Amino acid sequence: MARIALDAMGGDFAPKAAIAGAITALADLGSAHRIALVGQSGVVDATLAELLGGELAAHAGVRDRLDVVEAPEVIDMSDRPTAALRGKRRSSMVVGIEMHARGEVDAFVSAGNTGAQMAASTVHLKLHEGLTRPAIGTIFPTALNPVIVLDSGANVDCDAGELVQFARIGSVYAEDILGRASPVVGLLSIGEEPEKGNLVVKEAHQLLKAAGVNFQGNVEGRDIPRGASDRGPFDVVVCDGFTGNVILKFYEAISGVMGGWLLKAGVGKEQLGKAFAALDYAEYGGAPLLGVKGVSVICHGRSSPRAIRNAIGVALRAHESRMSEHIGRRLAAAAGEPGSSATAA
Amino acid sequence: MARIALDAMGGDFAPKAAIAGAITALADLGSAHRIALVGQSGVVDATLAELLGGELAAHAGVRDRLDVVEAPEVIDMSDRPTAALRGKRRSSMVVGIEMHARGEVDAFVSAGNTGAQMAASTVHLKLHEGLTRPAIGTIFPTALNPVIVLDSGANVDCDAGELVQFARIGSVYAEDILGRASPVVGLLSIGEEPEKGNLVVKEAHQLLKAAGVNFQGNVEGRDIPRGASDRGPFDVVVCDGFTGNVILKFYEAISGVMGGWLLKAGVGKEQLGKAFAALDYAEYGGAPLLGVKGVSVICHGRSSPRAIRNAIGVALRAHESRMSEHIGRRLAAAAGEPGSSATAA
Repeated sequence: MARIALDAMGGDFAPKAAIAGAITALADLGSAHRIALVGQSGVVDATLAELLGGELAAHAGVRDRLDVVEAPEVIDMSDRPTAALRGKRRSSMVVGIEMHARGEVDAFVSAGNTGAQMAASTVHLKLHEGLTRPAIGTIFPTALNPVIVLDSGANVDCDAGELVQFARIGSVYAEDILGRASPVVGLLSIGEEPEKGNLVVKEAHQLLKAAGVNFQGNVEGRDIPRGASDRGPFDVVVCDGFTGNVILKFYEAISGVMGGWLLKAGVGKEQLGKAFAALDYAEYGGAPLLGVKGVSVICHGRSSPRAIRNAIGVALRAHESRMSEHIGRRLAAAAGEPGSSATAA
Repeated sequence: MARIALDAMGGDFAPKAAIAGAITALADLGSAHRIALVGQSGVVDATLAELLGGELAAHAGVRDRLDVVEAPEVIDMSDRPTAALRGKRRSSMVVGIEMHARGEVDAFVSAGNTGAQMAASTVHLKLHEGLTRPAIGTIFPTALNPVIVLDSGANVDCDAGELVQFARIGSVYAEDILGRASPVVGLLSIGEEPEKGNLVVKEAHQLLKAAGVNFQGNVEGRDIPRGASDRGPFDVVVCDGFTGNVILKFYEAISGVMGGWLLKAGVGKEQLGKAFAALDYAEYGGAPLLGVKGVSVICHGRSSPRAIRNAIGVALRAHESRMSEHIGRRLAAAAGEPGSSATAA
């Protein structure tokens, strides 16, 4: 049995999408879990009543596993991350994360302001030793299995040691959430040879050879959608958060652009939907913020009820697999090695 | 009338694809131009006779506008760039570029080893004042007009001043080759706000506001396939060569992966070919190496005859529009400003 706090006010379609996602999650994901809906209780109660009395009436039985926790403030998408720390201490974001920090819930999920979630998670949950910032691992659909790309935007200026830490953290993520045994790690570069890349990547390549991860070597931009380099499939792609964010957003947009070309060439909408099903981010729901002590799952701002439901599923897997504990242990085992706090500049 | 030197031995399908491309270029692109086929003359003569006596017999009339220039050595794809400078001085690559440096031809085109072409072009043609390395601008098909992304791999570690130079150079390219009036420049980042990005990009953003280019501000990964940000369409995207190379290769591979999904969903091959026609790199032929004094056009290693033909078209446009001269003038006008040699660290 697990208890999860959900930011009922976070996301473009909150509170309805968030609350609908919570209801379907409880209906689908086992009968022992509870969800705390954190938000303006009047709004949350009304939405809950509307959904359970209407379109989700079939799931009315989950009501007694839903708690409503009052949080009078809301962090907007346009608020600065510091809003979570100094301005809106009584927001759904902060109240939910503090519940997790106090051990009242096992995980926190939000489709709200990502920067604020990162800041509040870092401050209230704390980071594992050896990290200066958490990382975001995003799942990229490929021609083979999905791969994890990290960092996807939390760390824009990275040194080689940080890239090594991403390799360690990403390996645990691949094991615990995706169930990959001995995940293969690739380092994103502009050629497969170790001497290809920018200065940071070239240094990281050398460090990764002795970092205790299953390092395949450099992978290139073309290898990501293929899910494999010439040396075989990989599970984790390591890069700085600038590059990771650029390709993530490029990938998100390209299906729309190609879809437009395909429709113009006479391809039907249904065929298109079927072909691009793997690209629906809702499938993966959310990305756990990697490196914090606990489970804080970041969802897309445009999350649908299905995306929220699946993000709650990710939070459950992260909790049940003890991913955060494993990350802490992996980093502790590497203490003194590149990227750990003991050797950081 | 222009005269172009073509590396007859460069590319995965050389010499046949290169020579076939030269023949069709002369047949299509006006009757006054001449092409010098540089390579092992025995091989070149034999291939020429085979093509003009066989599949391209209809174009036999162009034979008297084709010259064969002996170059006994060949630079392989696996040779280091320095092979062009120290090892294989009598290679088709070096002989062709030297012909251009001596003014015997107006442009050079090759589908051979890109690193060697960059090195030989830099050494023999020289760079315009204010540059330390040439840049590669790649044309990306988008939902709107194609855009130029530079640098695409020549400069992996860039400072802010170099990004500003790319904006200036890319603007001239967009004007002279793509015919865009007052090209709009975007700076690739991870958010549209000036304070988003890594340290180099944030500094470049400030410099670009006063760099004499039509600067739109930051653009994101998702804006590239769309050809526009929320502030409107753009013509040039500026980024370091690491990021540019990663997204270029990602883009090249994604259509194959998505094509696989589409075929599986029942989309026909013909529809697919029609929909993805804009993605055929052969359409754009080649990328002029930007910043050298002269015209050195880099082609894809897998260039087809059509790609070579179109690359020769690009070389002609670069020559006739005096692109290199315009780049030199633009850089000279900016002397003393960020990115120019006078202020370089």
